[in-house]
Amino acid sequence: MSTVTVIGTGNMGQAIAGLVTKGGNTAEVIAHADTDKAVTGDIVVLAVPHAAVAEIISARKDQLAGKVVVDITNPLDFATFSLTVPADSSAAAQIAEALPDSKVVKAFNTNFGPTLAAGTVGGQTTTVVLAGDDAEAKAALVAVVAAAGLKTVDAGPLARARELEALAYLQIGLAASEQIGWTGGFAVVS
Amino acid sequence: MSTVTVIGTGNMGQAIAGLVTKGGNTAEVIAHADTDKAVTGDIVVLAVPHAAVAEIISARKDQLAGKVVVDITNPLDFATFSLTVPADSSAAAQIAEALPDSKVVKAFNTNFGPTLAAGTVGGQTTTVVLAGDDAEAKAALVAVVAAAGLKTVDAGPLARARELEALAYLQIGLAASEQIGWTGGFAVVS
Repeated sequence: MSTVTVIGTGNMGQAIAGLVTKGGNTAEVIAHADTDKAVTGDIVVLAVPHAAVAEIISARKDQLAGKVVVDITNPLDFATFSLTVPADSSAAAQIAEALPDSKVVKAFNTNFGPTLAAGTVGGQTTTVVLAGDDAEAKAALVAVVAAAGLKTVDAGPLARARELEALAYLQIGLAASEQIGWTGGFAVVS
Repeated sequence: MSTVTVIGTGNMGQAIAGLVTKGGNTAEVIAHADTDKAVTGDIVVLAVPHAAVAEIISARKDQLAGKVVVDITNPLDFATFSLTVPADSSAAAQIAEALPDSKVVKAFNTNFGPTLAAGTVGGQTTTVVLAGDDAEAKAALVAVVAAAGLKTVDAGPLARARELEALAYLQIGLAASEQIGWTGGFAVVS
């Protein structure tokens, strides 16, 4: 059994905490403003808007050392509808640089919250696409997702987070332009 | 009715020519080595490996002026399994720069050939994701795809080709690592 700390109480935080609990693991949910509350999980999910990540890292860098840190963010400026990270980088790469003693995994950023809660998207089992450089960290997260009955695919090293963020950017754009719904998106068909 | 010239006789060229014909439009298929055969279609699909595009542009730049040119390529180096275009660019952007008098549309690069032929992927109608700067050019291609019973979504300007190529890069990586099949991939769920 794992304890997964979810920082963030929004739609994604709730959906991920629900997934953790559904699989029989323990979810600890912390509001992102509660910076004085210590994290106890071995896996810590940063379920906050991208702009809030720097503050969390600043407050919790030492606490996050040695832990699996899951970045679910999409670095989007909604005013200009553009990515805010350099083209050859990613939010995940920047977080990994800021947390050199943590094992950063990119995941959940390509899943709209309702598809995590429902466990299906368009008749397909919801698939979490992940990327990371630490095989054990990825395996720990895969076990939590699989326990809840969802699928995972491994996109490779953390460098692939760039493409995961590109995919999510497209997906959000399609939903924002009402070509797909916020309960849909890209389903992984095996 | 449209005439669509498909340059390239491989799996993708065949699948796209089949789609054109299925919708009641006319497909003209030209092997990419047949550089002396003139294109007659108003829409020209470059259904060749990315590395072969430069040669086609060199031979046919004048013929392609004024036409809708559809770039389906993925600029992948399979030896290193990496993208061969700069991170802030795309194959489509480079083609548009080389063909300033053509209307370049990115499309089909996120669809594995069998999903175009079958018209479905994982129980969903196959969706062609496209991007381009010319609304009329996109509408012409949308009409051809819709006539065949497939769906389209519009990812926006040609600048989004970068993300379409990122999505395809992920998809090819998942298939190459046998996590999905070459008849699957990312289905668009509305």
